[in-house]
Amino acid sequence: MAYDPSNIFAKILRSEIPAIKVHESAQTLAIMDIMPRANGHVLVIPKAPSRNLLDADPAALAGMMADVQKIARAVKAAFDAEGIMLAQYNEPAAGQTVFHLHVHIIPRFAGVALRPHGEAMAKPEHLAEHAAKIRNALAELS
Amino acid sequence: MAYDPSNIFAKILRSEIPAIKVHESAQTLAIMDIMPRANGHVLVIPKAPSRNLLDADPAALAGMMADVQKIARAVKAAFDAEGIMLAQYNEPAAGQTVFHLHVHIIPRFAGVALRPHGEAMAKPEHLAEHAAKIRNALAELS
Repeated sequence: MAYDPSNIFAKILRSEIPAIKVHESAQTLAIMDIMPRANGHVLVIPKAPSRNLLDADPAALAGMMADVQKIARAVKAAFDAEGIMLAQYNEPAAGQTVFHLHVHIIPRFAGVALRPHGEAMAKPEHLAEHAAKIRNALAELS
Repeated sequence: MAYDPSNIFAKILRSEIPAIKVHESAQTLAIMDIMPRANGHVLVIPKAPSRNLLDADPAALAGMMADVQKIARAVKAAFDAEGIMLAQYNEPAAGQTVFHLHVHIIPRFAGVALRPHGEAMAKPEHLAEHAAKIRNALAELS
């Protein structure tokens, strides 16, 4: 299916709507998920337009993964997480709800279940605090 | 944590134990998951040794994602899937059970739940049939 530039992540990339930013590189923007499945749940969004993985430019994927790795390490450090889960959903049947490629980075702890997908909105002040923790960890790790 | 070369995927990469292979490139080996969460569940394993995403060489990640994309498209075509889910687990708290970096590619259909993680072993003849379908789709797409 064709890419629709009116999706919410395209609007965030164009600064038409706000987001709680964690990191920006030439290739990606990383923001806090507003319905986090765990505290510290970050989305890495390539700037290059694609609906999802299936139609993405391979060069954009390569750049995306370099940033995903950096941010995954920072999320783990910032939240002292025991593990990190990556998830990436393509098409509605797989759970995709915003049709611009993005990767979920979610901190995990043994025996702690994730919150349901897309259920509860986090308080902006909590997300801002979490983003600051991750930015500090990024600065320390780089 | 340090990389342990006695893990099962390292043994498969060294051809010390068998696997049902889907695709091999200079950078990765793709095999059928022997406990598939859905028919067509493939694992993409970089040849470069790393425990998981957190300690991986960024160049290996870039090469891995190019192959993940190719195989995701082929899995979708082979199984006429409505969606594709990628998952990648780092450390036991996140669900990692084999300590060599790998990406799960799982076909999805609306309203069809995944089988539980790591529960039921598939029959080798079924996996071989699924691998053949994906190889055919790879040949058609390339």
